Amino acid sequence: MGAPQEFLDSVAFNGNGLVPAIAQQHDTGEVLMMAWMNRAAIEETLSTGRVCYWSRSRASLWRKGETSGQTQRLVELRIDCDNDCLLVLVDQTGVACHTGRRSCFFTAVRSGERAIIADVQIAPDQLYDKP
Amino acid sequence: MGAPQEFLDSVAFNGNGLVPAIAQQHDTGEVLMMAWMNRAAIEETLSTGRVCYWSRSRASLWRKGETSGQTQRLVELRIDCDNDCLLVLVDQTGVACHTGRRSCFFTAVRSGERAIIADVQIAPDQLYDKP
Repeated sequence: MGAPQEFLDSVAFNGNGLVPAIAQQHDTGEVLMMAWMNRAAIEETLSTGRVCYWSRSRASLWRKGETSGQTQRLVELRIDCDNDCLLVLVDQTGVACHTGRRSCFFTAVRSGERAIIADVQIAPDQLYDKP
Repeated sequence: MGAPQEFLDSVAFNGNGLVPAIAQQHDTGEVLMMAWMNRAAIEETLSTGRVCYWSRSRASLWRKGETSGQTQRLVELRIDCDNDCLLVLVDQTGVACHTGRRSCFFTAVRSGERAIIADVQIAPDQLYDKP
């Protein structure tokens, strides 16, 4: 799949040139994470089929899984009615969250308190080997 | 369900006092929309069980469905590992999108072009009756 300029031109980026991107597992419907993309990240995602975000903390392109191996294959990119939010249907290898959980949304508010509702599947020190 | 101060204190609002909130239909997994909440919107959502956002364009609380009747009942509120994004599991009455479609994410990029992938279920002029 190429990177259509017309589509890229239609995205309503915010003042920092970013747009929120929700990653959803394409077959189960799990919402895995929310991150940000800039124009280059969308372009790379569409052209490579491997999901790439913009890391605000590192101020650089963030090829998901580059260090952890937990990549996201693009299944379909969608955009909302205001053109200011992306929904990225993906096939997630392993886990999306840096804590080693499948989804970043593992904390619920139950009975007025935070409750952890998902187990760690891969220990974080296995995700990010330190040399 | 009350509005726990401890949970509200833990939310990492952005510089404008807002946090993105993804609405997902609790049983089908459909991602319906993304909007923003401030502290008061979260508090109202938790205390009433009816989802309330912050409208950036109107600069006021936006009780979803207030004018259209297409309300969202809160099923569960979740937060991500960075405490800077909410996932709101809801039971959506009718349609979430102002275009009359079930989800706001009705546009996909297919073969490099925008493709409309969902039909209008309720005509917009039926959603917003003008006196």
